[in-house]
Amino acid sequence: MMFKRGISTIKTSAKYTLAYKQYLKSPKGEIRSWFHDLPLDFNKTAATVNMVVEIPRYEHGKFEISKSEPYNPIVQDTKKGKLRYINNIFPYHGYPCNYGAIPQTWEDPTHGYDIDGKDYYGDNDPLDVCEIGSSTGVAKVGDVKKVKILGCLAMIDDGELDWKLLAIDVEDKLAREVNDIGDVEKKYPHLLGNLRRWFKNYKLPMGKGENEFGYNGKWLAKEDAVDVVETCHNSWKQLMAGTIKGENLPVIFSATAEQEAQEFVLPESYEGPDANIPDEVNVIYYYKE
Amino acid sequence: MMFKRGISTIKTSAKYTLAYKQYLKSPKGEIRSWFHDLPLDFNKTAATVNMVVEIPRYEHGKFEISKSEPYNPIVQDTKKGKLRYINNIFPYHGYPCNYGAIPQTWEDPTHGYDIDGKDYYGDNDPLDVCEIGSSTGVAKVGDVKKVKILGCLAMIDDGELDWKLLAIDVEDKLAREVNDIGDVEKKYPHLLGNLRRWFKNYKLPMGKGENEFGYNGKWLAKEDAVDVVETCHNSWKQLMAGTIKGENLPVIFSATAEQEAQEFVLPESYEGPDANIPDEVNVIYYYKE
Repeated sequence: MMFKRGISTIKTSAKYTLAYKQYLKSPKGEIRSWFHDLPLDFNKTAATVNMVVEIPRYEHGKFEISKSEPYNPIVQDTKKGKLRYINNIFPYHGYPCNYGAIPQTWEDPTHGYDIDGKDYYGDNDPLDVCEIGSSTGVAKVGDVKKVKILGCLAMIDDGELDWKLLAIDVEDKLAREVNDIGDVEKKYPHLLGNLRRWFKNYKLPMGKGENEFGYNGKWLAKEDAVDVVETCHNSWKQLMAGTIKGENLPVIFSATAEQEAQEFVLPESYEGPDANIPDEVNVIYYYKE
Repeated sequence: MMFKRGISTIKTSAKYTLAYKQYLKSPKGEIRSWFHDLPLDFNKTAATVNMVVEIPRYEHGKFEISKSEPYNPIVQDTKKGKLRYINNIFPYHGYPCNYGAIPQTWEDPTHGYDIDGKDYYGDNDPLDVCEIGSSTGVAKVGDVKKVKILGCLAMIDDGELDWKLLAIDVEDKLAREVNDIGDVEKKYPHLLGNLRRWFKNYKLPMGKGENEFGYNGKWLAKEDAVDVVETCHNSWKQLMAGTIKGENLPVIFSATAEQEAQEFVLPESYEGPDANIPDEVNVIYYYKE
C-alpha cells in the first residue's frame, strides 16, 4: 500500500484529553493504521524509511500509537487512568527531538537479542526514532516524514530492549551534510551526549529509575541502525503472518483485517482548541549525569 | 510610587508586528513607564528587587523596553526596519530563562568601570536579569516578579559592559533553597555553563561576532551582583536628576514628566491573536564552545 502523498489525519477530541485519538486517513478518505498500513518505504542503500511523528519536539503530551485500539490511532498514554506528560529535563523544553515510530516494524518480545553477552527481549512496540532536523518548521502529531537513518542507541528500559534510532528528515536543509553518527558528532556538537543523558533521566521526575544502555551507552553506526530496522521489519512481517506466539502481542487491526467493514465506525472530526496542560508540567528538572 | 499589586498591561497590537507596544498600567489605570515608574523595591539584606519580564523563557521575539517611546512600552526590537528574533541555540528553545530588566537601574555609558584592569562603559540600558525559576508557570511579556539575586556575569558586548544578573522568583517553590551562585552550581547542574555559552553565541546566527566576558567568564557572587544593582540604581537616580551629560541618553518619560498631561494619547487595547513567527526562526544552531 503506497499512499504517503495525500494522507491526512483526523482527531476525535482535544489534545490532552482521554478521548483524544488521532487517526491516519488514506488519500481515499479511509481510516488506516499508522503501525501496519503506513508503508515502511525502506531504501537500504540510501538508509531511508518513513516515520510517524508521535511527539513533536517541545511537546509535553506523551503521545503514542495505540496497540489495542482498532486502526491504532495516536493517543495520549495514561497511567492509572491519568494522562501522562513529558517533563522538562534541563536543558530541554519538552521532547528533545521529533520523536516517533517507524511503521511496519516491531521489537519482538519473544526473541532474545545478544547485547554485551546477555539476552534482551524487545519491548513489543514499533521502533522508536529521534528526528533531529529543524529547518522544515515545528512538526505536528501525525506528520509523516521520510528520514535518513544516522545511527542508534541500545536503550534498556526495565530490562527490555528499546532501540532509539537517530535520523534526519530528508527535506531538512542540512540533510545532505550528515550521513552517519560521526557527522552528527562533528556538525551537531553536544547533541549526542545531551540526548543520551535525556533518555537516561527522563523518567526520574515520575518516580521511576534511570534507563540503562547496551554497548556502554555508545551511539552505534548507521549500518547497525539499518540492521536493526531490517530485523524489526522482519519481526513485524512474522507478527502479521501470525507465526509468532506469545502473550500480550499487538492485536492486528489494519486495512486487511476483517474488522474493517464490520465493526469500525468512522469518528467525527474535532476541530476545536487543545485542552490545557497541567501547570506542574512546566517545572524544569536538573540532573548532573 | 508603590503599585506592584494591581498593575496590569495593555498592548496596542499583535505580538510580532512593528505596531506592537505593551504598556504598564497602574492600579489607577494610568499608563506608566516600566523603566522609571515601576519601583526597584530593593531589599539589600534579602537581595531582592523587582524585575519586568521582557522575553519569557522559550520566547523568540526580541522584546525590550523602548528608551525612546513615551512611557517606555515593551516593543520588539528591529534592525533596518525588520523585526528581530531570538534563534534556537542548541540545546535551548528560544530564550533560555525569563529575561528582563530591573526597573530604576541604568548602565551609565558615560562612566568607565574597571574590569580586569581595563575601563568598560555601560550599555545605556536598564540592568538585565535572567530568572531561573520554573514552578510558577510560563511567564508572559510584562510580568512583574519579585526576584532574589544570586550572582552575575560581566558580559562585554561590542566593547560595552552589559551585566547579566542571575536571579530566582521568590515565589518559585525552590527559591528558599538557593541563595548564591554556589547553590545554583550544586542544585542546577549544567545551568551556569550552558547559559554562559548561550550568551557567548546567541548573536552568531545573525552574522554578528561572539560576546566576551570580564573576569574570565566567571559567574560572580551574590554580593558582587548586589553591588552592581546599587551602582546602577545610583546611576539611574543621577540620570533622572539630570546631572549626567552625554549623547544618546534615554529620554525621560515618566509619571512626573511634563509630557504626561499634554501629549500622550492612551492607546486602544488589542485583544486579538499574535501574528505568525517567520519559519526560519525555528532552525536550531549548534556551537561547540
